[in-house]
Amino acid sequence: MVNETQHTCSASSSSKSDGGSSSGSESSKDSSRCSTPVLDAERHERLREKMRRRQDSGDKWFSLEFFPPRTASGAVNLISRFDRMGAGGPLFIDVTWHPAGDPGSDKETSSMIIASTAVNYCGLETILHMTCCNQTKDEITGHLQRAKRLGLKNIMALRGDPAGEEWEEEVEGFNYAVDLVKHIRNEFDDYFDICVAGYPKGHPEAESYEADLRHLKEKVFAGADFIITQLFFRSETFLKFMKDCQAIGITCPIVPGIFPIQGYHSLRQLVRLSKLEVPQEIKDVIEPIKDNDAAIRNYGVELAVSMCRELLDSGMVHGLHFYTLNREVATTEVLKRIGMWKEDPRRPLPWAVSAHPKRRVEDVRPIFWASRPKSYIYRTQEWDDFPNGRWGNSSSPAFGELKDYYLFYLKSKSPREELLKMWGEELTSEESVFEVFTCYITGEPNKNGHRVTCMPWNDDPLATETNLLKEQLEKVNRRGILTINSQPNINGKPSTDPIVGWGPSGGYVFQKAYLEFFTSSEIVTALLKVLKKYELRVNYHIVNVKDQNITNAPDLQPNAVTWGIFPGREIIQPTVVDPVSFLFWKDEAFALWIEQWAKLYEEESPSRMIIQYIHDNYYLVNLVDNDFPLENCLWQVVDDTFELLNSPTEQ
Amino acid sequence: MVNETQHTCSASSSSKSDGGSSSGSESSKDSSRCSTPVLDAERHERLREKMRRRQDSGDKWFSLEFFPPRTASGAVNLISRFDRMGAGGPLFIDVTWHPAGDPGSDKETSSMIIASTAVNYCGLETILHMTCCNQTKDEITGHLQRAKRLGLKNIMALRGDPAGEEWEEEVEGFNYAVDLVKHIRNEFDDYFDICVAGYPKGHPEAESYEADLRHLKEKVFAGADFIITQLFFRSETFLKFMKDCQAIGITCPIVPGIFPIQGYHSLRQLVRLSKLEVPQEIKDVIEPIKDNDAAIRNYGVELAVSMCRELLDSGMVHGLHFYTLNREVATTEVLKRIGMWKEDPRRPLPWAVSAHPKRRVEDVRPIFWASRPKSYIYRTQEWDDFPNGRWGNSSSPAFGELKDYYLFYLKSKSPREELLKMWGEELTSEESVFEVFTCYITGEPNKNGHRVTCMPWNDDPLATETNLLKEQLEKVNRRGILTINSQPNINGKPSTDPIVGWGPSGGYVFQKAYLEFFTSSEIVTALLKVLKKYELRVNYHIVNVKDQNITNAPDLQPNAVTWGIFPGREIIQPTVVDPVSFLFWKDEAFALWIEQWAKLYEEESPSRMIIQYIHDNYYLVNLVDNDFPLENCLWQVVDDTFELLNSPTEQ
Repeated sequence: MVNETQHTCSASSSSKSDGGSSSGSESSKDSSRCSTPVLDAERHERLREKMRRRQDSGDKWFSLEFFPPRTASGAVNLISRFDRMGAGGPLFIDVTWHPAGDPGSDKETSSMIIASTAVNYCGLETILHMTCCNQTKDEITGHLQRAKRLGLKNIMALRGDPAGEEWEEEVEGFNYAVDLVKHIRNEFDDYFDICVAGYPKGHPEAESYEADLRHLKEKVFAGADFIITQLFFRSETFLKFMKDCQAIGITCPIVPGIFPIQGYHSLRQLVRLSKLEVPQEIKDVIEPIKDNDAAIRNYGVELAVSMCRELLDSGMVHGLHFYTLNREVATTEVLKRIGMWKEDPRRPLPWAVSAHPKRRVEDVRPIFWASRPKSYIYRTQEWDDFPNGRWGNSSSPAFGELKDYYLFYLKSKSPREELLKMWGEELTSEESVFEVFTCYITGEPNKNGHRVTCMPWNDDPLATETNLLKEQLEKVNRRGILTINSQPNINGKPSTDPIVGWGPSGGYVFQKAYLEFFTSSEIVTALLKVLKKYELRVNYHIVNVKDQNITNAPDLQPNAVTWGIFPGREIIQPTVVDPVSFLFWKDEAFALWIEQWAKLYEEESPSRMIIQYIHDNYYLVNLVDNDFPLENCLWQVVDDTFELLNSPTEQ
Repeated sequence: MVNETQHTCSASSSSKSDGGSSSGSESSKDSSRCSTPVLDAERHERLREKMRRRQDSGDKWFSLEFFPPRTASGAVNLISRFDRMGAGGPLFIDVTWHPAGDPGSDKETSSMIIASTAVNYCGLETILHMTCCNQTKDEITGHLQRAKRLGLKNIMALRGDPAGEEWEEEVEGFNYAVDLVKHIRNEFDDYFDICVAGYPKGHPEAESYEADLRHLKEKVFAGADFIITQLFFRSETFLKFMKDCQAIGITCPIVPGIFPIQGYHSLRQLVRLSKLEVPQEIKDVIEPIKDNDAAIRNYGVELAVSMCRELLDSGMVHGLHFYTLNREVATTEVLKRIGMWKEDPRRPLPWAVSAHPKRRVEDVRPIFWASRPKSYIYRTQEWDDFPNGRWGNSSSPAFGELKDYYLFYLKSKSPREELLKMWGEELTSEESVFEVFTCYITGEPNKNGHRVTCMPWNDDPLATETNLLKEQLEKVNRRGILTINSQPNINGKPSTDPIVGWGPSGGYVFQKAYLEFFTSSEIVTALLKVLKKYELRVNYHIVNVKDQNITNAPDLQPNAVTWGIFPGREIIQPTVVDPVSFLFWKDEAFALWIEQWAKLYEEESPSRMIIQYIHDNYYLVNLVDNDFPLENCLWQVVDDTFELLNSPTEQ
């Protein structure tokens, strides 16, 4: 009965239809029903559909352009910049193609890998630039196939700069962007959304402005879906260009490229490359302050803000494209000033989604990887199907091995020296480890005055939600309940709640209280006695590195611990505590003690041996309080455990 | 990634395992995870597993034997008896094989069809008896294939009575039950659970008691899973038999057959057929009262109760099998007296499940068929997959046509004359139809003093849950909002709640308020104006018989309106309001006006024309209030609608 074909759903009719035109009753009987998206439609749409939806709804958008980094550490930084700037809500980002940087290769700095990381691990809709001159058809097809395999769905088709001065057109070769557009449509049909470049002042090599417009029209008619323009300095330039395009029959979206001036040298360089002329009134302001970076940036922001406002006010512009030069401050500032930066982006799900097409329907994950979503995505990248609606029936837990802790998108943002300052140059006892955990929770500086802003299991400071539990977490960490994941119980808060909300508005979100921690076998022994009292209320799973494994999960079934109820939709349950996946997570969680922490120290050093001891002897415990409408009992469980440990009969 | 193979899950270890024996961590990595049942395990187990589970947990069970009816109306009655006695919680029922009654045929009175109806439409685990003598191998194989196709999983393998007195063994034929057991195992491997008959006094035709025990052992060793015994009159008879069986190595479950004496003649007949001797002490009591049916039944109940108690007290008996003779009173009385009748059976889901193996995972249905579950099962019987976890992705709405309103298991329990008394011998106006709906809601007698205990859309009196809404429902039905389905909003009541609870204990159940009704186009016009005010809160779907169709369901997505949160389990959402299925339900709901009501009257009669007018002109409306934590706003919507209709500006 399951019909795999995805039909396009006809929009629901919101007004009463007249006698003759019955809306869809008969037709929907003939065809099988659409497998409609449960959550936000944008996750299921291709980029050009998203643009159209935004245009129809009048919801203005922005996008961000980046270039690939030069070094591996630059890549780590760029990916965390993607995460930070992604939080502002860009409709897409794009990554330029650097022919000199082996752009289609496996290198962590290649255009291909950076764009694929943005899609897969940062969940960003991404356009990969691609140039065609000086390349064979096979090379280009190979790049495109690779892009498709990696989950990329959008290509910015460019000519690129000819290699030498003495460039001549090749017969049968790729001489212009239009050749690349045609090739993509020939070889990949409608798979990719294609973007092409527009030149508001005409391409510097074009015979004339009019001739360049005609070239642009050719690119669009060859199959391009939308246009992003080269930068310009006056809004009139763009608006005139747009009218001229429309006049000759170009009807696709045209997105103005905004370049916030960020410094004297970067402006000079860009102008030289793009062969644009900087208007005199701008030169007049900049030249006198050319050595004052801050002043130039402030001016650049002002200029961009007023140009963006003029463009948006024209009513002709629905989206703005920013040339970020891989910097955050100026672009973010402009976006905030014009009110387009989403301070509190609505989360479609409690965890960071991946934008790979095959993960579009994914809406259930085990809670264990909540602070390591990239590791989860990496370890499940080979799956063909992803859980949708229910964990139990949609997915097997065939997790990939995680041996490459140093993959750039999984790597800690902090260098070794910084980690040592946070986690201790020298550990003297298990208690000094407890202290590190406690400082991470409290945010207070450690003995040496350094704040602990990350842990091997959490590369970011404590989540706002976890802050709700801060007091209790501090108390238990001091006593050797080393927490690495937790959530409070929530009994129906609005889905728009700034801390725990997610999903469409008008809904209600729920959670069962969850606590996950490492602790000693002595504490586990007492805990197990205490848990007998809570047998019907608390589900637990306790395991050590030797695979001793204790659980009361009925039939090893997953336990939904986060769910949401929304108007006109099926229930979403985005996180589960799955006893089977927990055994895979356990391996990763234990390994992080060694890979991220113990290895900071010399072999055989006391510090390393303390971490090794914990790794070898502690248990990883997770607890779920099923009675979400009542007060969270997990703290009582821990208190009871310590009471039992301290009672004289137990001594 | 989805592994279709169902592995047997290893039970969760509830105590800490010792060093050496790690419980399952590594092994569960190697194999794909089980697709474990979310709700009660019994739904997923075969009969012999259910018996074993009950035996292990010490949870005593009972089963009920019926014979096929002689007439079609007898079949209707028997099916509603299955529903009533099914509510008491039998582990299974069994249906005898009447060779003279064309037992394998399509007739509504055949053993095959009655057993299949019990499985498919009453959701009862069912054993089909089958005899083998005087039948060819092909005939028998045909019956078994048919049984399998119809969802039957259990066979009671019997020899049956030879046709003539001069019976001789056939070479290569089926002469004994053991031949049938072997044949089933040969041809169908392990598909069927097989039950065989045991004779506590020895089979009347056996050479000796000992020889008969040896025959029984042969049947078990040929592949029978358990034994049900012939009736007996003293518990010692059974207990001795059981010990004798064990002594010769029969280890499978042996279930005592209990025959509550219900009348003098039925006892005489049974004794004659089974060639058993009634003990003198029983004869002594019965003979003097042989014309007093009530006295004999009372005695029979007493006798059965004390025998059942002795059997259960022996510690050797885990289940009791009742020969009901298709009667309810005596068996129900015995079961109640010994505390085995489940007065308040825990519902695994809010709707009546089907026991067909392919529907085992089904746990989502549209709410529309809530009062017509058998019709829903009928119309979806050809589906290959059933929704599990989510409606949207698991099922297409390819509903079968419902033309056979007179299929015996769909037929109203009330005859035409009774329906006329309830719904009016003569209708004079639309208002007299409103009156019928109102009387059904209130339970008050109609003008002619008859109570309206069923409606075309509800063959049973108002559900207890609907009673919660009685006052409001009465009010709106009087005004022409003709309700056929509704549920109150529920914001987290315990799953054990006697009225709205379902599923395992320790959980919480939720509902969105739902209201479904027929109403005039005048009211619909006002309603649509009112609904604008509730646009973000209320989802609606309004349709008439001409397929005019108005909805605000986002992307035509289903809306979950009943869900439950349980300890250690994923979320269950057993009912949805699906805008696409609604169009199929609508056809059925409108057709019921004509098929069940209008056709009671002469063609061209005023009564028939009134119903025809409503059918042709009214709309079917459903409303969901998405804000389940707040007070149900649907009554306010209706009030606002009437206020608008009554306001002077609208006149």
